[in-house]
Amino acid sequence: MKHFLTTADWTLEALQAILADAENLKRSPIRDDLKNKAMALLFFNPSLRTRTSFELGVQQLGGTAIALNAGQDSWPLAFDEGVPMLGDEEEHVIEAAQVLGRYVDFIGIRSFPKFKNWQEDRKDQVIKSFAKYAGVPIVNMETITHPCQELAMIKALQDRHGELKGKKFVLTWTYHPKPLNTAVANSALMAAAKFGMDVTLLCPNENYILDQRYMKKAGEYAAGFGGDITISHDIDSAYAGADAVYAKSWGAIPYFGNWDEERPIRDAHKHFIVDEEKMQKTNNATFSHCLPLRRNVKATDAVMNADYCLAIEEAENRLHVQKALLSALAKG
Amino acid sequence: MKHFLTTADWTLEALQAILADAENLKRSPIRDDLKNKAMALLFFNPSLRTRTSFELGVQQLGGTAIALNAGQDSWPLAFDEGVPMLGDEEEHVIEAAQVLGRYVDFIGIRSFPKFKNWQEDRKDQVIKSFAKYAGVPIVNMETITHPCQELAMIKALQDRHGELKGKKFVLTWTYHPKPLNTAVANSALMAAAKFGMDVTLLCPNENYILDQRYMKKAGEYAAGFGGDITISHDIDSAYAGADAVYAKSWGAIPYFGNWDEERPIRDAHKHFIVDEEKMQKTNNATFSHCLPLRRNVKATDAVMNADYCLAIEEAENRLHVQKALLSALAKG
Amino acid sequence: MKHFLTTADWTLEALQAILADAENLKRSPIRDDLKNKAMALLFFNPSLRTRTSFELGVQQLGGTAIALNAGQDSWPLAFDEGVPMLGDEEEHVIEAAQVLGRYVDFIGIRSFPKFKNWQEDRKDQVIKSFAKYAGVPIVNMETITHPCQELAMIKALQDRHGELKGKKFVLTWTYHPKPLNTAVANSALMAAAKFGMDVTLLCPNENYILDQRYMKKAGEYAAGFGGDITISHDIDSAYAGADAVYAKSWGAIPYFGNWDEERPIRDAHKHFIVDEEKMQKTNNATFSHCLPLRRNVKATDAVMNADYCLAIEEAENRLHVQKALLSALAKG
Repeated sequence: MKHFLTTADWTLEALQAILADAENLKRSPIRDDLKNKAMALLFFNPSLRTRTSFELGVQQLGGTAIALNAGQDSWPLAFDEGVPMLGDEEEHVIEAAQVLGRYVDFIGIRSFPKFKNWQEDRKDQVIKSFAKYAGVPIVNMETITHPCQELAMIKALQDRHGELKGKKFVLTWTYHPKPLNTAVANSALMAAAKFGMDVTLLCPNENYILDQRYMKKAGEYAAGFGGDITISHDIDSAYAGADAVYAKSWGAIPYFGNWDEERPIRDAHKHFIVDEEKMQKTNNATFSHCLPLRRNVKATDAVMNADYCLAIEEAENRLHVQKALLSALAKG
Repeated sequence: MKHFLTTADWTLEALQAILADAENLKRSPIRDDLKNKAMALLFFNPSLRTRTSFELGVQQLGGTAIALNAGQDSWPLAFDEGVPMLGDEEEHVIEAAQVLGRYVDFIGIRSFPKFKNWQEDRKDQVIKSFAKYAGVPIVNMETITHPCQELAMIKALQDRHGELKGKKFVLTWTYHPKPLNTAVANSALMAAAKFGMDVTLLCPNENYILDQRYMKKAGEYAAGFGGDITISHDIDSAYAGADAVYAKSWGAIPYFGNWDEERPIRDAHKHFIVDEEKMQKTNNATFSHCLPLRRNVKATDAVMNADYCLAIEEAENRLHVQKALLSALAKG
Repeated sequence: MKHFLTTADWTLEALQAILADAENLKRSPIRDDLKNKAMALLFFNPSLRTRTSFELGVQQLGGTAIALNAGQDSWPLAFDEGVPMLGDEEEHVIEAAQVLGRYVDFIGIRSFPKFKNWQEDRKDQVIKSFAKYAGVPIVNMETITHPCQELAMIKALQDRHGELKGKKFVLTWTYHPKPLNTAVANSALMAAAKFGMDVTLLCPNENYILDQRYMKKAGEYAAGFGGDITISHDIDSAYAGADAVYAKSWGAIPYFGNWDEERPIRDAHKHFIVDEEKMQKTNNATFSHCLPLRRNVKATDAVMNADYCLAIEEAENRLHVQKALLSALAKG
C-alpha cells in the first residue's frame, strides 16, 4: 500500500514525476484519472486552501470528494488501543478507518499537533492509525509535516528559478502572536534539501531549531544530493546571497506545553519580519510562504505585493500537485 | 470583469434576458453551461435556500460547487489594509481572494452587516474586497442587498401578474423580535421600481425608511421606468388597491448599535402582521416574502397557506434565476 | 408518495428486492439510476457513516447530494403548527420542507429523540413533518428507528448465514456511559422478526424492554413469518444456541428525562459487555453492531477483531442498500 504520509517515503525521481505531471495538469486541468473513484477528506482542523484544492482537484479528475469535519460532522475518535473507551470518544479509529476504507479509494487526513507534549505529537498517531487500518492510500493534508505544500513550494521555485541545485534557500522563522505548528517548516527544510539546495535555517536561537528527526533527514539529503544545511541566528549573513527566502513561524519545541515561558523570547524577535530592507541583502531572491500569512507581522505589504512573491503561485500549485499525486496513487 | 454585486450595475434588458433564460431553465434544468467550471460559495453567515440552490444549480449546469463556511471551515479573514494583523485574523482577504480566484471560476459571497454601525456596514467591505482581489466574477449571495432574491421575486411576480409596469407594489415592514438586515427590503424596493411598478414603502415611522442610497436609486428608476415611490405609515391606504404585497422586517437605521432603544418602537407595531383582513383591502393582491418567515408573527397561517402566496414559488425561482445568472456570467 | 420512514410500511418482498439489488450494486457500483436527480441530506444530528455513504451512493448513481447540517448551516426550524413563532426558530418546517422539495428529488432526514419525554419523541415529529410537506420521498437516516441500518444488518446476516428463517437472533443491551437512542434496537428487533428469525431480547430488567409499538410489531412479524419473540434477563440462556448476536445500548424508556435515576441500574450492568466467554455459549454465532461502538465497553477487542464480527461488513452494506433503496424510490 503506497501512502503519501511524508515525502521521505518517496524517491526524488517519483516526486519529480509528480511535479512534471502537475505542469501537465496546470495546462490541461480536466482528466479522468479518478473516474468512478472517491476520496474522503477528513479534517480534524479547519482549512481553506486544502479543502478547496482537494475537493476541486478530485472532481476535475472525474472523482467524488467528500469533506468531513471530524468532531463536527462526526464523533470524536479514540486512538489508544486496548483500553475501555470510557471518555468522550464514541468510536475507535480501528472501525472509523476501516469503514471509510470500504467506502472510498483515498483518505486525506488533516490533524495538527495538540501542542501540549511534543513527544506525543511527534508520533503522528492520527494519520498513522488511519494508514494502519483503512486499507486504502492515505494522503497527508498537514499533520506534523505538510508534504503537499512541499511539492507546491518546489514547483513554484522550479518555475521561477529552473534547476534548484546549488541555489541558496533561507528558511526564516518569523514572529506570530501564537506558537504555530512546525509542520511547514519541517517540510520546507526537507524539500529544499532533497532538491539539492543550500539551506540556511534562520531562527532566534537554538530553541527554535526543528526536531532532530527533520534536521537529520535534511542533513542526509544534503549529503546525498549535493547541498548543505546551515543553522543561523544572524539575519544579515543568512539573507546575504539568498536565492529564495521562505518564511514560517513556529513554536519552539522545548517549550511545548509551556508556552507562557516561550512568549517573551518570541515577543523579542518581532524584527524577524520579512521586509524590503532584508530582501535587498539577497541575490534578488524570491519570497514565499505557505499561507495563511499575517501581513505586516510575518512579512510586510511591500514584500507580499512584490513581483518576487510566489505565495499565490505556490497556493495555486497545491491544486496541480495534489492532482498529480492522486493520479500517481491511483496508478498504484 | 462583470460581477453581480447589485442589480444596479446591470441594465433592465440584461436582467430581463436572465429572467427569460430562467424560464428556459425551469423547463429544462440540465445544461452544460458551466462544464469544467467551478464556483466557491463562501458563507460568512448560514444559509438553507442559498446554499442548496447554488450547489444544485451549479451542478445542474455541469459545474462543481464548493461550499465553505468561513470562520468554521477556514480562518477568520482580515479586511483592513496596511495594518499589522495582530488580532484574531490569520489571513488577509488579499491572499484569500486571490487564491480562491486561482482555483475557481466564480465566487459567491454571503456576508451580513455586523449591525453595530451602519456607516461601516453600508461600505459592504467583504464582498467589495473579494471583487477587488479575486480576479473572477463575484456573486452577491446577500450582503446589504440581495440581488438574487430580486430576480426570484420579479420572476414570481411576472409569472402571476404578467407585465408589472403600473402595478401597485407594497413593501411592508413587519414585526420580528430581532432587528434584521435591510438587504431584502433594499432589494425589493429597487427591483420593483426598476421593473416599473408603483411602489409604496409602508413602515411604522420615518426611522424605518431605508438608506437614502436605495431610496434615491428607486426614485431614479421610478423616474426612468414610469413608476413612482410613495412612503406611507398608514396601513389602510397603503394596502388599498395593491396588486402585490411584499413583507419584510428590518432594523431601523438610526438605531444601529443601539437596539435596546429601538425595541419599544418595534414592539408597538406588531399589528403590521400581514393578515387576511389587510389582504382584503387590496386589489386581489399576491403576497410574498423571501423566507425564512416566522408564521403568525410576520404573516398569518391563512396568508401563508393562501393561493395568492408566492413565497414557495419565489424560493424555487432562486434556483432558476441563479443558474441563468451564472450562465450569463460564464459567457462573459 | 412512497417514503422510507420505516420498514413497517414496506412488504417483505419489496425489502428482499432491495437487498437483491444491493448485491448487484456491491458488484457493479456505478449506475445512472439517479441521473439528473438530487438528494438533500438534512442532519439535525451528526454523522460519519450515514453522510459518507449517502453522499457517495447518490453520486455513484449519477445524482447530486447536498448535505446540510441543520442548526449549523441553516436556521433552527419550528414544527408546532398554528402558533406565533416567537422563540428561536426563524423558519417553519412547512416552508423549509416545501422549498427543499422544489429543489431536490429526495430528502434524507436524521433527527434523534430529545431524550426528555419519550411520549414526545415517539411522535417522530421532524421526519413526519417533512413527509407531510415536502412533496418528495423522505428517507429515514435515523430518527426513532433506523431502517437503513436494518437493511444493512439483514444483508450482512444473509451473506454469512444464508436463509435467516428459524435462526436464533439475540439482541443484547450493553452498558454505555450515556443513555442512547433506542432506534437501532427497535429496528434490529423488527427486522430480525420480519425476516423470520427467532428473536431474544436480552436486557437488564423489564424497564429496558423496548416501546410496545415495536414489541407488538415484532410479535406480529413473528406470528406472520414463522419466528418468535422472547424477552430474557439471563445472559447464559439468552446466548445459548444463538446464531447471531447483535449488541446495542439504549436508555430505559420509563426513565426518559430522569436519567440520574437510571444511572445506577445501568452502572450495575457493565457485565453485559459482549466478550469471548459469552460468544462461546452460542452456536458459533456471528456478532454485529451498528457502529459507532466503544471498544471494551460494549464489546471486547477480541470480539470486534474476530472473524465472526460483521460490523464492518454491515457498515459497508449501508452504501449498497441505500443505493438500492434510492433506485427503488426513483422508479416510484
